[in-house]
Amino acid sequence: MRPEDLTGPDREQWLSKPEAELRTLLEELHPEDLAQALNVIEEPDDVTRIMRALSVEMSAQVMERLSSDRQGDVLESVHKDQAVEILSEMAPDDRADLVQELPADQRETLLEHLRETAPQIAEEVHELSSYGEDTAGGLMTTEFVALQPSMRVEGAINEVRRASKREETEHIYYVYVLYGDKLVGVVSLRQLLLSEPDKRLEEIMETNVVRLAPTEDQEKVAVQIAKYDLSALPVVDDQGNMLGVVTVDDVVDVVIEEATEDAQRMGGVMPLEDSYLQTSFLTFIRKRVGWLVVLFLGEMLTATVMERHNIHAIAGLSVFVPLIIATGGNSGSQSSSLIIRALAVGEVRPRDWWRVLGRELGIGLVLGLALGAVGFARAFLLGTFHGSIALAVTIAGSIMAVVTLGTLMGSLLPLGIRRLGLDPAVSSTPFIASLVDVLGLLVYFTIAGLIFGISV
Amino acid sequence: MRPEDLTGPDREQWLSKPEAELRTLLEELHPEDLAQALNVIEEPDDVTRIMRALSVEMSAQVMERLSSDRQGDVLESVHKDQAVEILSEMAPDDRADLVQELPADQRETLLEHLRETAPQIAEEVHELSSYGEDTAGGLMTTEFVALQPSMRVEGAINEVRRASKREETEHIYYVYVLYGDKLVGVVSLRQLLLSEPDKRLEEIMETNVVRLAPTEDQEKVAVQIAKYDLSALPVVDDQGNMLGVVTVDDVVDVVIEEATEDAQRMGGVMPLEDSYLQTSFLTFIRKRVGWLVVLFLGEMLTATVMERHNIHAIAGLSVFVPLIIATGGNSGSQSSSLIIRALAVGEVRPRDWWRVLGRELGIGLVLGLALGAVGFARAFLLGTFHGSIALAVTIAGSIMAVVTLGTLMGSLLPLGIRRLGLDPAVSSTPFIASLVDVLGLLVYFTIAGLIFGISV
Repeated sequence: MRPEDLTGPDREQWLSKPEAELRTLLEELHPEDLAQALNVIEEPDDVTRIMRALSVEMSAQVMERLSSDRQGDVLESVHKDQAVEILSEMAPDDRADLVQELPADQRETLLEHLRETAPQIAEEVHELSSYGEDTAGGLMTTEFVALQPSMRVEGAINEVRRASKREETEHIYYVYVLYGDKLVGVVSLRQLLLSEPDKRLEEIMETNVVRLAPTEDQEKVAVQIAKYDLSALPVVDDQGNMLGVVTVDDVVDVVIEEATEDAQRMGGVMPLEDSYLQTSFLTFIRKRVGWLVVLFLGEMLTATVMERHNIHAIAGLSVFVPLIIATGGNSGSQSSSLIIRALAVGEVRPRDWWRVLGRELGIGLVLGLALGAVGFARAFLLGTFHGSIALAVTIAGSIMAVVTLGTLMGSLLPLGIRRLGLDPAVSSTPFIASLVDVLGLLVYFTIAGLIFGISV
Repeated sequence: MRPEDLTGPDREQWLSKPEAELRTLLEELHPEDLAQALNVIEEPDDVTRIMRALSVEMSAQVMERLSSDRQGDVLESVHKDQAVEILSEMAPDDRADLVQELPADQRETLLEHLRETAPQIAEEVHELSSYGEDTAGGLMTTEFVALQPSMRVEGAINEVRRASKREETEHIYYVYVLYGDKLVGVVSLRQLLLSEPDKRLEEIMETNVVRLAPTEDQEKVAVQIAKYDLSALPVVDDQGNMLGVVTVDDVVDVVIEEATEDAQRMGGVMPLEDSYLQTSFLTFIRKRVGWLVVLFLGEMLTATVMERHNIHAIAGLSVFVPLIIATGGNSGSQSSSLIIRALAVGEVRPRDWWRVLGRELGIGLVLGLALGAVGFARAFLLGTFHGSIALAVTIAGSIMAVVTLGTLMGSLLPLGIRRLGLDPAVSSTPFIASLVDVLGLLVYFTIAGLIFGISV
């Protein structure tokens, strides 16, 4: 069976097979592929038939990978005891995410039933839900192998064997050594396999453990994991007590998701929850119209600036308006994309603002000089107004000024926004460009007024 | 010892300690932290003293994490036999990358010496270098555990133990089952630990293995690994022969790096090789001036369009020029950032262009209608030219047209560029904005001419 068979025209043929046969066929599929097929099946009955045919283990693995909406549908369609059974087999982090994403009334009903039938799971869901979704605490799983410092290697390998049998323990390649609840060391399965069976963990463990706070932002977590080439990082509270483990496979998802969100914000779109082709027409309008209207209202100031200045006093002045303001916007979007990304991966912090300022100022002046020279040549040599030194100098000077303005705005605004604790990617490319448009016009008309000695 | 001690003012005190003591102190550090300190030390002698104090194993681990420039410096500073020793301990993928990045003459000298003293390493570097740096072949390591289908679990665990001792084998958590050179299955270390010692691998192996072609783009590799939550994927040629393994820790680096490069391209900057604060002033100018000049030359067309049209024929027309062209640019940058990202993660393919076209056309019309209404109100109610229905209709119609134009350009251009086999992120936000500026002016003047019934 291929995943397409479940969504294609012949699906009735497949789904009407006897349940035992259907189960065998379905369990050949990768849970991810099965989940993706289930995400797009439209007929609720078909979903129920498929889920009913699966073993509890496979159901749990598929559930972990379903979209939140579909998770809710599936839980509705099965008996509440079966729901608890499936939930019990899921990884704790995925389970907590599922519960958090359910509609409020469905969540309450489920939690109540969980508290009666599986109080320890209800408690754990509650605990994991208390951390922000985008933090180390929200990403971590609470199932890991924890052993005492005095345990011997042989016993530790047996413990890992035992943990391997539990589906919910995603990660068995590191053993965490706890003294009480305090994390004192880590031993990789690799080291365990290499060590003498009668050595104690405290003799072979690595004590210099890179660790995360539960409140750490998920993008920082990703950068840490990438930096140290680790497959998992422990999460500890401020007393050093072990809370859970963030694994690298969750982190890859996070990095891809965050990069997408940042790219969308930088383009002036509110982040989408679904993929491009799965997002509905109305959602697109909703995600785009807000910023577009804000930018439009801001950009209306350009019309006000144009009205307030007597641009017709100098022939040819209006001709260069688009060129000048666009050039400022371009240099601004270069700076903002560099800084927003540098902030995202932790290369630059808000307190580096003076180094950024010095650098961008210098870069703006040099780039402005280069473009100003081209602009001078264009204005002086070509077009209806050629031969006017005064106009050419106005153009060149304004270009220099707006390019520098663009680099400064584009670099300092993201730093300021991060400083306020917001996501710097909201100072999007269109936002910087609009700001520089308005200021650029003011700069242009001021310079023209000074050079021509009249009030423009 | 902390990494800062090596770069701080007291570094002489630390570095002048006896070599044995210095070695003990240095080996307490994480290789990543030591590498980062070495990357920023300015005195070449200090680098040599540190590297000389390290064991070969630690040297290799540090080398894998140094910047390419620094790798070259270190190889220059040690004896060529020591260089070969360090290289032999490095992971094959990092080793091949190092050799590829060396300056041509240094690379030739090193390869010649490698061919004489370690021909199998020279051969392997040659082979790995034949794949593009950004492909699965360029990312993969050739050190992995490969066993025969008939081997028993007990023997397999012993083989994993043996492999664990070799520093170069990064990845031991999957065992690849080969029949001849052909990949026939995979067994995780977890399954090995769980299985009866006398079972054969062919009885327990997973035969439905997700696999990569060596030419697969690294961003696609990342998406595959994220999708299936795997910690490694095998790379096989088109005959099914096993070539190597891509591990998830390399993939996290790739994803972060690609997202940064895309963000920079989308902002109109050529991707930087180093971090923001480590990039030199001149490099910044070089990376930014190219696109800025191209955009400037393109944007000069706006001045030509302004000159060729008699915009003074209609009072008030020039006032709305910045507002109209910027609004087209904003809707264009929304579309391009959505599509570029959707292409990067494989949500949209060039052949989906007609679905994208239909959707963006609809979105453009709706957004254009909304903004056009605001524009109509602004032109009709406020400012020097209020009360002119003809002007207000011109503004509203032009806004609708440029917003739609923006969504179409912003979505179809990235698709077209990908179709040509290029990186769609080069159709940057400023690029789309400049294009829409020029076209937007033409649209605006054409609509004005039609409505006012004169040639503008």
